[in-house]
Amino acid sequence: MSAGEVLASRTAVLSGPRTLGWTTRSVPAPGPREVRVRVRRIGVCGSDVHYYAHGRIGPFVVDGPLVLGHEVSGVVEAVGAGVTRVRPGDRVALEPGVPCRRCTYCQSGAYNLCPEMTFMATPPVDGALSEYVVWPDDYVYPVPETVSLDAAALLEPLAVGLWAARKGEVRPGSSVAVLGAGPIGCTTVMAARAAGATTIIAVDLEDFRLDLARQVGATHTVNARREDALTLIRELGAARDHLPLSHGGVDAAFETAGSLPTTRLTLAAPKPGGVAVLVGLPPDPEVSLDIVSAASREVTLRGVFRYAGCYPAAVALAASGAVQLDALVTHRYAFKQTPEAFAFADQEKRASMKVMIDVVA
Amino acid sequence: MSAGEVLASRTAVLSGPRTLGWTTRSVPAPGPREVRVRVRRIGVCGSDVHYYAHGRIGPFVVDGPLVLGHEVSGVVEAVGAGVTRVRPGDRVALEPGVPCRRCTYCQSGAYNLCPEMTFMATPPVDGALSEYVVWPDDYVYPVPETVSLDAAALLEPLAVGLWAARKGEVRPGSSVAVLGAGPIGCTTVMAARAAGATTIIAVDLEDFRLDLARQVGATHTVNARREDALTLIRELGAARDHLPLSHGGVDAAFETAGSLPTTRLTLAAPKPGGVAVLVGLPPDPEVSLDIVSAASREVTLRGVFRYAGCYPAAVALAASGAVQLDALVTHRYAFKQTPEAFAFADQEKRASMKVMIDVVA
Amino acid sequence: MSAGEVLASRTAVLSGPRTLGWTTRSVPAPGPREVRVRVRRIGVCGSDVHYYAHGRIGPFVVDGPLVLGHEVSGVVEAVGAGVTRVRPGDRVALEPGVPCRRCTYCQSGAYNLCPEMTFMATPPVDGALSEYVVWPDDYVYPVPETVSLDAAALLEPLAVGLWAARKGEVRPGSSVAVLGAGPIGCTTVMAARAAGATTIIAVDLEDFRLDLARQVGATHTVNARREDALTLIRELGAARDHLPLSHGGVDAAFETAGSLPTTRLTLAAPKPGGVAVLVGLPPDPEVSLDIVSAASREVTLRGVFRYAGCYPAAVALAASGAVQLDALVTHRYAFKQTPEAFAFADQEKRASMKVMIDVVA
Amino acid sequence: MSAGEVLASRTAVLSGPRTLGWTTRSVPAPGPREVRVRVRRIGVCGSDVHYYAHGRIGPFVVDGPLVLGHEVSGVVEAVGAGVTRVRPGDRVALEPGVPCRRCTYCQSGAYNLCPEMTFMATPPVDGALSEYVVWPDDYVYPVPETVSLDAAALLEPLAVGLWAARKGEVRPGSSVAVLGAGPIGCTTVMAARAAGATTIIAVDLEDFRLDLARQVGATHTVNARREDALTLIRELGAARDHLPLSHGGVDAAFETAGSLPTTRLTLAAPKPGGVAVLVGLPPDPEVSLDIVSAASREVTLRGVFRYAGCYPAAVALAASGAVQLDALVTHRYAFKQTPEAFAFADQEKRASMKVMIDVVA
Repeated sequence: MSAGEVLASRTAVLSGPRTLGWTTRSVPAPGPREVRVRVRRIGVCGSDVHYYAHGRIGPFVVDGPLVLGHEVSGVVEAVGAGVTRVRPGDRVALEPGVPCRRCTYCQSGAYNLCPEMTFMATPPVDGALSEYVVWPDDYVYPVPETVSLDAAALLEPLAVGLWAARKGEVRPGSSVAVLGAGPIGCTTVMAARAAGATTIIAVDLEDFRLDLARQVGATHTVNARREDALTLIRELGAARDHLPLSHGGVDAAFETAGSLPTTRLTLAAPKPGGVAVLVGLPPDPEVSLDIVSAASREVTLRGVFRYAGCYPAAVALAASGAVQLDALVTHRYAFKQTPEAFAFADQEKRASMKVMIDVVA
Repeated sequence: MSAGEVLASRTAVLSGPRTLGWTTRSVPAPGPREVRVRVRRIGVCGSDVHYYAHGRIGPFVVDGPLVLGHEVSGVVEAVGAGVTRVRPGDRVALEPGVPCRRCTYCQSGAYNLCPEMTFMATPPVDGALSEYVVWPDDYVYPVPETVSLDAAALLEPLAVGLWAARKGEVRPGSSVAVLGAGPIGCTTVMAARAAGATTIIAVDLEDFRLDLARQVGATHTVNARREDALTLIRELGAARDHLPLSHGGVDAAFETAGSLPTTRLTLAAPKPGGVAVLVGLPPDPEVSLDIVSAASREVTLRGVFRYAGCYPAAVALAASGAVQLDALVTHRYAFKQTPEAFAFADQEKRASMKVMIDVVA
Repeated sequence: MSAGEVLASRTAVLSGPRTLGWTTRSVPAPGPREVRVRVRRIGVCGSDVHYYAHGRIGPFVVDGPLVLGHEVSGVVEAVGAGVTRVRPGDRVALEPGVPCRRCTYCQSGAYNLCPEMTFMATPPVDGALSEYVVWPDDYVYPVPETVSLDAAALLEPLAVGLWAARKGEVRPGSSVAVLGAGPIGCTTVMAARAAGATTIIAVDLEDFRLDLARQVGATHTVNARREDALTLIRELGAARDHLPLSHGGVDAAFETAGSLPTTRLTLAAPKPGGVAVLVGLPPDPEVSLDIVSAASREVTLRGVFRYAGCYPAAVALAASGAVQLDALVTHRYAFKQTPEAFAFADQEKRASMKVMIDVVA
Repeated sequence: MSAGEVLASRTAVLSGPRTLGWTTRSVPAPGPREVRVRVRRIGVCGSDVHYYAHGRIGPFVVDGPLVLGHEVSGVVEAVGAGVTRVRPGDRVALEPGVPCRRCTYCQSGAYNLCPEMTFMATPPVDGALSEYVVWPDDYVYPVPETVSLDAAALLEPLAVGLWAARKGEVRPGSSVAVLGAGPIGCTTVMAARAAGATTIIAVDLEDFRLDLARQVGATHTVNARREDALTLIRELGAARDHLPLSHGGVDAAFETAGSLPTTRLTLAAPKPGGVAVLVGLPPDPEVSLDIVSAASREVTLRGVFRYAGCYPAAVALAASGAVQLDALVTHRYAFKQTPEAFAFADQEKRASMKVMIDVVA
């Protein structure tokens, strides 16, 4: 197959709330420094499901047909001029956001904040639920054979976890609490463990998620239906750090559940001088929080908006066996079952961890 | 006068709400590594006035007689064994908080968070509104002749400003907004300018404070009664950084007024990736804030609880002429007028900047 | 004049050792996101003079005609498609290095280390000693009227000084030593002062340079022909920091002279835990140094290779009046005198600071 | 046994080159905030052996009887007033250096640079090769049952490795090279792996050390007698980071062998922007190095002088099973065989890794 050929690419399209249909799009030959990829796996992310069900996330509104999917792996099919880092046949993961490369954010390494970012499956930018996609080579990462195609797709949520762990300043011996044990909670656990955290407390309402969190690195799990997470965190921290209970807590707490109670807990859990990281966001823009107590304890509060520069580490960790991304896949659908996959993910959030679509098995 | 002598020290004591009286206390000879200081100047801080008027600040409750005053300068009167860094006759400033020196916070340089911190004029620890105080030598800082005794006392609020500027990551060319232009707002302006900020926007409701802020380093002043500070900050930032208005803002915003509107503004003013520093705190523990927008812009939110390791820089800046602390003193009282000084500071907050008490003129 | 027109641009060309001649080159219309600039001022840098005299700097060898000049200011003549940050008539400075924008260095903000960097007047890339140049808009910085065209050209060495000060972790109250008081020494002094250094010790062999260093911010000057700089630095540091002489030194020392004695001094001057920054480099690749003493004191040693992300701060500092770049210009030549300018700069290094060429007066 | 009792403590004393004898010393009751410990294990460190054989290390000269031993574990025998973090019977490790707690270094968390540091077995301060020692409680760390007494003693070299990894800015996905695979090389490997390094290249001249390095975390081993370590490091780095060979290298290189060739390799191995950490030091104060190349690549060079604040992480990592300190012990001696242990360690450096002395089995 020549690199110059335009390909017909079967594509799943969201045309309205909970309405996924099919179309065929033309995928051009890769231009200079571009790569055309045969898509193999697409992980279904919570944001995909949110667009599917509600047609918007905050300021981003679906007002035309949208292709979902931004957790992507595949195989290089053709490369454009000047591409040296991959060759046809290479197994790759795609970093789904491409920035302008020219603004002050891009110049300083904070490209996730670029005002002109194009990010897959964020309206109006299409995602990758298609047979083929063309992508700039600097955001295409080859992965070795030791990384499965599933895992390669899941480097995306791992990148989120790694960015969160960096923001949380996790280092060898750190104690952390991860509030919420869904896919992002679990990749945050993985990233915290990879960064050396030795006390990793996962909190959730579902035991099956907590079991999975423990499997991927949590040292303590708390079902918040049955236990008081904050008391436990404070007691454990005070004992560990030889501090009075007033100063007990974790070095870093991570909100990954997107609820108000977990947001409040994220601010309360760090010890004085610790860090609270909002990976998820509370559902309402305005929330009532005890910011006074957090500020008085000099807890630093940071938000996470995607990630920057995390794919190399994500690839390296997956390749080294330091993280077990495959463990996250609980359900699997063929490409043609994409509508069923979304319907399931929408209805069974509590019973599933990661739904994976085999674009080509 | 021998170092071994016990001295009678006339002392102002807060015995109830808005009730300041006098007593005489015995001040012992300085022990090993201690310094006895003849107090010369005490600046009246907002927290002093708050204890005076309300008998408490958050969890700290005045439930016995309390000596106020923690912005202190004086002259060394005697030194204990092992003291080498000062000699009798040296003009000094006292850093008012002394930590345990042994806990994990002290070991790591974050001594302001030490659980056993003793801090002047924070119940039940007495302050320095007295003729003599004894203090450990490591928290006694000699100042050169070029630093007035007033300025030496005001190294304390300058230390707060410096800590704030560090937390705000201010560096050459930074843009900052300082919300509130009282004494702490002004020392934050000074510290930001000393750290190289070139755009310093001071916001207040009183023109006389804004004039003073401009005098000590603000490049722009906004009276929020008459102008929309947020719009101005965003427009100015966008133009300066060659960014769209959506990304306009300052590198760092500082809350120093302790009000809800300024707290909200502090979260809204930074550009994506910027820093919001709460030097003051909103009056209620629970506040409703748009944390979602701040987190989505990856704005880092930090609190300030006193400071650590800032006195050496404060001394150096005052001695070099880089900051003009004397400009802050708007009212002056003799020691015997201490009750009048507090009554004035309590009633005329809006008309005064810094009230200074001459313990000895 | 239309943006589409090709212009003839009178250009000075280095064709052999100490051989500067003239040619006329075609300068195309600016392409998308490009700017065509009428060059106004070119500062002569030590590296320009080194290529002029010796035909090489380390691995960079002049093996064909080369246009020198990378300290550049001018006026926008035309802009290409998509350019919004400048308009014809704007006064601008050009950041002389343009990276690939795609490699791992560019993605992480360390673009000065990009393997594919094109940097003006570094063989085989031409510099700006020409009437017109075309440059990508993201490396074109508009400057306000308060910044002279001379100063705009000198933002380049100021950027080096700012990068050095960042590497030296200079902050309010820091003590620094700057070894060498040539143009880069002086911009390092400026940058250190802008970052809050209060003790700035400049060391050189020429009094006229030291006088200039003092004028732009040095608080102490040492002529190393007459005084022992290291003893002075250690005594001053020990007194200032209340430390024994064994621990006396500065927070940061900067080598800007490119000699072995200053390199040795740069390693010896920092106090334990301080930083030594090599802005210049010793003349021989292999040098004998007391690395053991520096490492035992946990002195961090950093090199400077150009800069990254420093132009915005350089513009802001120059515009604010925090730095006085115009003070550096000691000699001035018209464009047609370019050969004389280089001959002078080559022969009179000791007697001159900055030689400025008026491409158009 | 009462806390008030003075104990007779059998003690090994170095009285001259390679002359270890016995004495009995009185060990007082622990004073306030002090702990008396029954010593159980002492690891023999290279510095102990150096004092034993040569009577000095750099400026530190043995000019009187000296007790060696600073890798110490034991069991609390009695505690003084105010001690809360341990109780008699607790198994503990001792951090062997106690700083003044008052100087500017101590105040800022850099207590390893304290001018008044007292560090075990560094003349004239005695070490712990004795039945009992008294130590301040803030430098006594309880360890859980999951940490053996051997491992507890080896928290000391692990602390060195952790400090090195911090200085090397190791994080998830980092590539590192460790030059030398002795005990410190191995703890640096452990620390780098704990911090998330995924490529860990150990280089040594002895295969048995390399085998051990691989066992504790190295992913690649290079016997420098047989292979060109630098070429291998550059090729591996370039491939991994998608960079040209000119930019190939590791994120961080660590010198732990104390030789000139490894020091040179440590400067050459990092990629541009990387870090070189001198944990060991070359044998001569003055060494000839290619500092120009390192500085041009903006490689940061840092020294390691002991460590600060690393014991909590060391305890946590050992307790969590993230590091296998026990693997380092290759030879074991009873307390009464202390002279034989030192003679062996002195003569068989190449054949042994860690020699452990059972003060009480």
